[in-house]
Amino acid sequence: MSRNIRLLLEYDGTRYLGWQRLGGDANTRTIQGKLETALRRMTGEADLQVIGSGRTDAGVHALGQTANFHTASDLSCEEIFISLNQYLPEDIGVLDVSEMPDRFHSRLNVTSKTYLYRIGKEPFPHVFDRKYIWTVPGTLDVPRMRQAARLYVGVHDFRGFSSMKNKKKSSVREIFSTTVEETDREIHILYCGNGFLHNMVRILTGTLVEIGLHQRKPEQILQVYESLSRQDAGITAPPQGLFLVSAEYPHF
Amino acid sequence: MSRNIRLLLEYDGTRYLGWQRLGGDANTRTIQGKLETALRRMTGEADLQVIGSGRTDAGVHALGQTANFHTASDLSCEEIFISLNQYLPEDIGVLDVSEMPDRFHSRLNVTSKTYLYRIGKEPFPHVFDRKYIWTVPGTLDVPRMRQAARLYVGVHDFRGFSSMKNKKKSSVREIFSTTVEETDREIHILYCGNGFLHNMVRILTGTLVEIGLHQRKPEQILQVYESLSRQDAGITAPPQGLFLVSAEYPHF
Repeated sequence: MSRNIRLLLEYDGTRYLGWQRLGGDANTRTIQGKLETALRRMTGEADLQVIGSGRTDAGVHALGQTANFHTASDLSCEEIFISLNQYLPEDIGVLDVSEMPDRFHSRLNVTSKTYLYRIGKEPFPHVFDRKYIWTVPGTLDVPRMRQAARLYVGVHDFRGFSSMKNKKKSSVREIFSTTVEETDREIHILYCGNGFLHNMVRILTGTLVEIGLHQRKPEQILQVYESLSRQDAGITAPPQGLFLVSAEYPHF
Repeated sequence: MSRNIRLLLEYDGTRYLGWQRLGGDANTRTIQGKLETALRRMTGEADLQVIGSGRTDAGVHALGQTANFHTASDLSCEEIFISLNQYLPEDIGVLDVSEMPDRFHSRLNVTSKTYLYRIGKEPFPHVFDRKYIWTVPGTLDVPRMRQAARLYVGVHDFRGFSSMKNKKKSSVREIFSTTVEETDREIHILYCGNGFLHNMVRILTGTLVEIGLHQRKPEQILQVYESLSRQDAGITAPPQGLFLVSAEYPHF
């Protein structure tokens, strides 16, 4: 009998090539690879596969990634929680383990995702934050960024704000909210939407930063929805400031 | 003309053998060594020496270490701040640079120091905290720890709570306050005193933890003041949970 186990995960992406499994030795530097290696050892199931809510890029962190896997093992959720946390390296942690109906699928059932991007305002951030923020040179006009961020909300074709190559796949997504918060030393941008294309959060952020630096006008966002051209959007913000906060699902 | 420059520093001690300069290649793995190398390059003064408020052990962190150095360089404090932050590795940061009267000495003039020790209550702490806490197995009796911590306050001979070898040096110190605070996932112990012996904060913490685990009675602290024997105190808590918060000085 097969069981369907859901994992709530967090990770520090600094050392990794990203979520997705890769061939050969590189697999030991992916989150999915680390999880599958540990779970295959724990269950003795050599073909066990872990499904994530979506990929995260090399260097991107997660505060709440969701994944699931099918297994015939009779390990309890509590036993999986303890053994998996013991097997996994220090920079990947399991926050919760639960058993789900067979039809639950981490990627196909996700209804929305929330991302956080941390920008540092100080030229030399606190040493304990340096691996987790993007230090932007210059003073950012936060009210202007907030005004521009409103133009992201809604249903749009975000192709120009992505690195996607496949022209046949839809690049229409809905962003439910984009909030820009400021603290003494940092600016936090929170994105919630029904899905995000490859590099999309990082390009949305790079574009907002260029607007905040007065290198670009807020209205230019609308032009990218028209042209669908990557060249018309801003730079790709570096990965280390990006955190997948959560993937949300309907009640199962 | 010689100037006296004061530095306020923070560092992540994980990669380092501690504050104090060591001979040969090991010096590149000390905080003092990294600072002296950078400042010697910046000033061209091959014998420039950096004085710290005191040593921190291998693996111990600092949120606010104070140091000073004498130089004939005419670099402004602002220039030192920028260049030093640029030269130093990512895990050592300069928070402030100021010019002091010639008589100011980071070690001799310090009037008190504050240390923080972070203990994790969960068996598997958040991945972003793992390098900065000591995870204690078992449930700690915090009111009992708080009661015991009061016995540290005052003027005592702390020899038994230290790793010091030199029997001629005084091991009498005054602790002004020891507070034990609890959050959902952590216990924080804050120590403020006029000076701390080698490993003293870590042994005071290890002893409090044994008391919190009911492996030891609070009154046994008083016995250590009598016997002055290291064997009568508790274990040495590991370095990664310890932070030098600040060194305090009179007005200059």
